Amino acid sequence: MKISQAERDAVYKTIFARRDVRREFLPDPIPDAVLKRILLAAHHAPSVGFMQPWDFILVTDKACKTNIKQGFLQAHAEAAELFHGDRRTQYQSLKLEGIEESPLGICVTCDRNRTGSVVLGRTAKPEMDLFSSVCAIQNMWLAARAENIGLGWVSILHDNVLRENLNIPEHIDIIAYLCLGYVEQFHDTPDLQRAGWLDRQDMSNVLHQGVWEDKN
Amino acid sequence: MKISQAERDAVYKTIFARRDVRREFLPDPIPDAVLKRILLAAHHAPSVGFMQPWDFILVTDKACKTNIKQGFLQAHAEAAELFHGDRRTQYQSLKLEGIEESPLGICVTCDRNRTGSVVLGRTAKPEMDLFSSVCAIQNMWLAARAENIGLGWVSILHDNVLRENLNIPEHIDIIAYLCLGYVEQFHDTPDLQRAGWLDRQDMSNVLHQGVWEDKN
Repeated sequence: MKISQAERDAVYKTIFARRDVRREFLPDPIPDAVLKRILLAAHHAPSVGFMQPWDFILVTDKACKTNIKQGFLQAHAEAAELFHGDRRTQYQSLKLEGIEESPLGICVTCDRNRTGSVVLGRTAKPEMDLFSSVCAIQNMWLAARAENIGLGWVSILHDNVLRENLNIPEHIDIIAYLCLGYVEQFHDTPDLQRAGWLDRQDMSNVLHQGVWEDKN
Repeated sequence: MKISQAERDAVYKTIFARRDVRREFLPDPIPDAVLKRILLAAHHAPSVGFMQPWDFILVTDKACKTNIKQGFLQAHAEAAELFHGDRRTQYQSLKLEGIEESPLGICVTCDRNRTGSVVLGRTAKPEMDLFSSVCAIQNMWLAARAENIGLGWVSILHDNVLRENLNIPEHIDIIAYLCLGYVEQFHDTPDLQRAGWLDRQDMSNVLHQGVWEDKN
């Protein structure tokens, strides 16, 4: 199947317009048909040995979100201790999650034993199954953006908070907690870039011809 | 920036038409302008704390590819020992890489210390930086597909083969070796599905409402 130039440009537009959304979520629910399309895109991610190790837990319960938010606040306070001086002040001033404002949370996991202990393609690189679940997240992120829905990945959160609140069995690895919802606006640049936390690197700094080249 | 319905449909088309390509690569080189677009899409992936930990090593040297292919053959032979009976025979019959046929290899890495030891968003979830590099790979995969270029992730390969052949320093984590090139055709379904290795799961098996639900 051929992708046309217009279709190609739409993919690039979506990739460059994707943001990690932590605020400006609107409370409007995501229609079922839209959510189903987004989840189907995630489910069509590549996976090692075609094992499709992911699960998606859909979180809309208010009390559950409040508990997860508490977990964030604890991990966030712990993290602040690791920064010093102005950097700590800046860290504390940033809005880094939209757990309670976004209408939908999605916990993404990885079932490492889904298709047995030996997995085609995982034998020399054991983390490949975790990476498959991450590919599903990136598909979901782009599909959400294509639906003009914001998505934010909340990583300032200990796994046990999600495990306890979402009844996730011990043998299931927790990969991510995502917040989804319509937004007031999408910004042109990442929040952390606009806040002066870090700049986008010039691409030449991350490209190497033939072998690794030391860069400054 | 608003994504139109036609643009949204182009994103879904690309996501569903993406394949893990291991054969049917054509030798035609990828034009520089096309490659630059694909790499820029990868470079615009989300990253934890905006650290952009990825590097991309572009491999076109024939001797280097031959060495990497040897590494694959060794890891592949080791893996075959882990399967038994018919499953081993089937495993051995599958074409699982296009290292020498594809015009371009790209090794993707992760520099975990790129922005210092404390990273915003990595404090409670240390593997987030590795996941950022995986998001870059999925962006690259979709961008390649949008350019009608096939991409295959070769994971049956020990890290040290890439480290030695590409001079990758010890402090850099190796995430993936990817093969890229134009292809004779894109198949409608994954190779492993057509080969009867595993089926695509029904999406209802991976969806959970509210909390984890045990599925059969």
